[in-house]
Amino acid sequence: MISEKMRNMVKNSSAIRAMFEEGKRLAAIYGAENVYDFSLGNPNLPAPSEVADALKYEVENCDALTLHGYMSNAGFDDVRAAVAENLNKRFATSYDKSCIVMTVGAAGGLNVFLKAVLDAGDEVVVIAPFFGEYSNYVANYDGRIVVVKPNPPEFLPDIQAFENALTAKTKAVIINTPNNPTGVVYGEDTLKALSDAMERAQKKFGTSIYLLSDEPYRELVYGVSQPYPAKYYRNTVSGYSFSKSLSLAGERIGYLAVNPDCDDFDDLIGACAVATRVLGFVNAPSLIQRAVAKCLDASVDVEFYRKNGEALKAIMDECGFEYVNPQGAFYLFVKSPDGDDAAMCAKAKKHRLLLVPASGFGCKGWVRIAYCVSPETIAASRQSFIKLAKEYTR
Amino acid sequence: MISEKMRNMVKNSSAIRAMFEEGKRLAAIYGAENVYDFSLGNPNLPAPSEVADALKYEVENCDALTLHGYMSNAGFDDVRAAVAENLNKRFATSYDKSCIVMTVGAAGGLNVFLKAVLDAGDEVVVIAPFFGEYSNYVANYDGRIVVVKPNPPEFLPDIQAFENALTAKTKAVIINTPNNPTGVVYGEDTLKALSDAMERAQKKFGTSIYLLSDEPYRELVYGVSQPYPAKYYRNTVSGYSFSKSLSLAGERIGYLAVNPDCDDFDDLIGACAVATRVLGFVNAPSLIQRAVAKCLDASVDVEFYRKNGEALKAIMDECGFEYVNPQGAFYLFVKSPDGDDAAMCAKAKKHRLLLVPASGFGCKGWVRIAYCVSPETIAASRQSFIKLAKEYTR
Repeated sequence: MISEKMRNMVKNSSAIRAMFEEGKRLAAIYGAENVYDFSLGNPNLPAPSEVADALKYEVENCDALTLHGYMSNAGFDDVRAAVAENLNKRFATSYDKSCIVMTVGAAGGLNVFLKAVLDAGDEVVVIAPFFGEYSNYVANYDGRIVVVKPNPPEFLPDIQAFENALTAKTKAVIINTPNNPTGVVYGEDTLKALSDAMERAQKKFGTSIYLLSDEPYRELVYGVSQPYPAKYYRNTVSGYSFSKSLSLAGERIGYLAVNPDCDDFDDLIGACAVATRVLGFVNAPSLIQRAVAKCLDASVDVEFYRKNGEALKAIMDECGFEYVNPQGAFYLFVKSPDGDDAAMCAKAKKHRLLLVPASGFGCKGWVRIAYCVSPETIAASRQSFIKLAKEYTR
Repeated sequence: MISEKMRNMVKNSSAIRAMFEEGKRLAAIYGAENVYDFSLGNPNLPAPSEVADALKYEVENCDALTLHGYMSNAGFDDVRAAVAENLNKRFATSYDKSCIVMTVGAAGGLNVFLKAVLDAGDEVVVIAPFFGEYSNYVANYDGRIVVVKPNPPEFLPDIQAFENALTAKTKAVIINTPNNPTGVVYGEDTLKALSDAMERAQKKFGTSIYLLSDEPYRELVYGVSQPYPAKYYRNTVSGYSFSKSLSLAGERIGYLAVNPDCDDFDDLIGACAVATRVLGFVNAPSLIQRAVAKCLDASVDVEFYRKNGEALKAIMDECGFEYVNPQGAFYLFVKSPDGDDAAMCAKAKKHRLLLVPASGFGCKGWVRIAYCVSPETIAASRQSFIKLAKEYTR
């Protein structure tokens, strides 16, 4: 009785989530400390103390009708104003509250934007490897996903291949920097080159192409800075989530920031508010909206993730596994020695290592290791990685 | 640049939300106390104290990684178990945690269910008047909404008309009792008659027809009790929200309870979990999930709403307006004297009364008055209603 479309989605369901559920099953058998679950981007750092303080403050001081009641579908006016102001301070942008739509995480925001702009058959360009859920989000609105092939070993976009992928039907491009699953950060040159290609395509086809910049890892960078994509391309909509910067993945809180110079700004903002409602989000959860507005400059300890990455890289070096040196996010992207990512993950599971095959990210032959785990997990996993490496050198 | 589909949705956008925004505009001009906003079902009672206690308890005592982190897409296991147990206690059902999917409010839950079951062209039967958003939810998945015409003055379903609306393509029926916008409660006889009609249709067409029972007003009843719909029909999925019972409309928290005897139970539950993820909800917000699990027997003071209803009915009687005597929810359904609901709402607005025309609920000629407001608002609105009535007796 379930729909055909859903039957296919279930069948091809997220390898990440399957591993996460498998991890819980194995933990019940072997004990959580003996399962090295690198599957899910579920932060291992507690939310900064500002979050608990803000939550308690709001519960104690905010009028309950305001705190827990409906507000405009786009979110609380004062929260949206605070977000706009904070972005302006950090990135010298010129947002005001009318540019901001509070969303149920970045995933909710991406769906809201795509619902707002996609008609059946419209194309959305993504650059592999990319977060596999984008395919589902685009399919939700009968859009067609167009994948620019991976460009190893640096995994920076092949600009010519990217430009070739843009057509008269391209409604949007999704980028994600720092990148999940590679940890690659797009610098100024890359953002400029992408922007130039899109500008040429807009001119060539007489269309508007939106850049949907998915930025949940914006603050998680190591020794580099992440240029703000909206500064490089006018038609940019930034999708943000507090899931990683404040370790609030389960709370589902984020926002869309629509560049005020975007084509059809008013229509787009109006459509995003309506999409928020008709998709059943209605509005981003109210208490956590108010709490994050008080924590816009707070952050988890990024150094923790950097050290995790270093520890994991040392193990990979010891094992002889090739990987992309991550500049951001909390993923290590590792090459399967024989090019078979699914087999590598199956072998790893025998050693109680839960990794995710990157075929689901549009990049066969690689696996993703999420290192948002405890340093103890990484240290304890060393022997298992060594055993895994031996399977390839026998 | 926004999609054609969305352009239509924006154009036909919610009359309720338009009135809500209008109310904020008028309040800024005339002062909030001089605008009688009966537009939105936004509870005027603060959440019961158990909610603040539970929120503070969780923030102070629950491990932050658990409290704010990802869990299974269907929700926390212990929260789902608590919900199942509470339903079993109250309604002698036999749910377990596997039957429960925590959702982003009832609106999120309805979308999750419809995404799980609808293919393009599948039919969903609703009984007018019905919450207008159902049309958008069904359209989101390219389903076709089939409306059973209103049956005044009692507004209980015309069973023969209902049965005639069921076809081989009927995938689901949505009911909503206590009803928004009429306040009507479906009793045992009505639920049995609906069930019998659906059973006959299932047999006739060799199909499964799901009953999606939208129950945000379940606890808000006045002098009657609401029989539990799932007890009368096997293929029932109950959609619940804590928006009204705990005054948490902005928090977006609810659940789907799938009857364990439903056809294709495992597939349906699996599809709902995947739909939760791919629609971008990912999971219901985590902190508020944990908090409501501690407040399953708590409730706002229903007597407050009953008294509001009585006060408003007295004004309607004084004005000579006809209305449906509400047995539940917090809406008074009032007949426009000249059959033009849009005109009545326009006239009302001149007197700073914000009402919602029921054309958007599939019931031309009636208006909805949401009385989840302060008693002072109702008392103060009396003169405006008297002036409105005079416009019809000149």
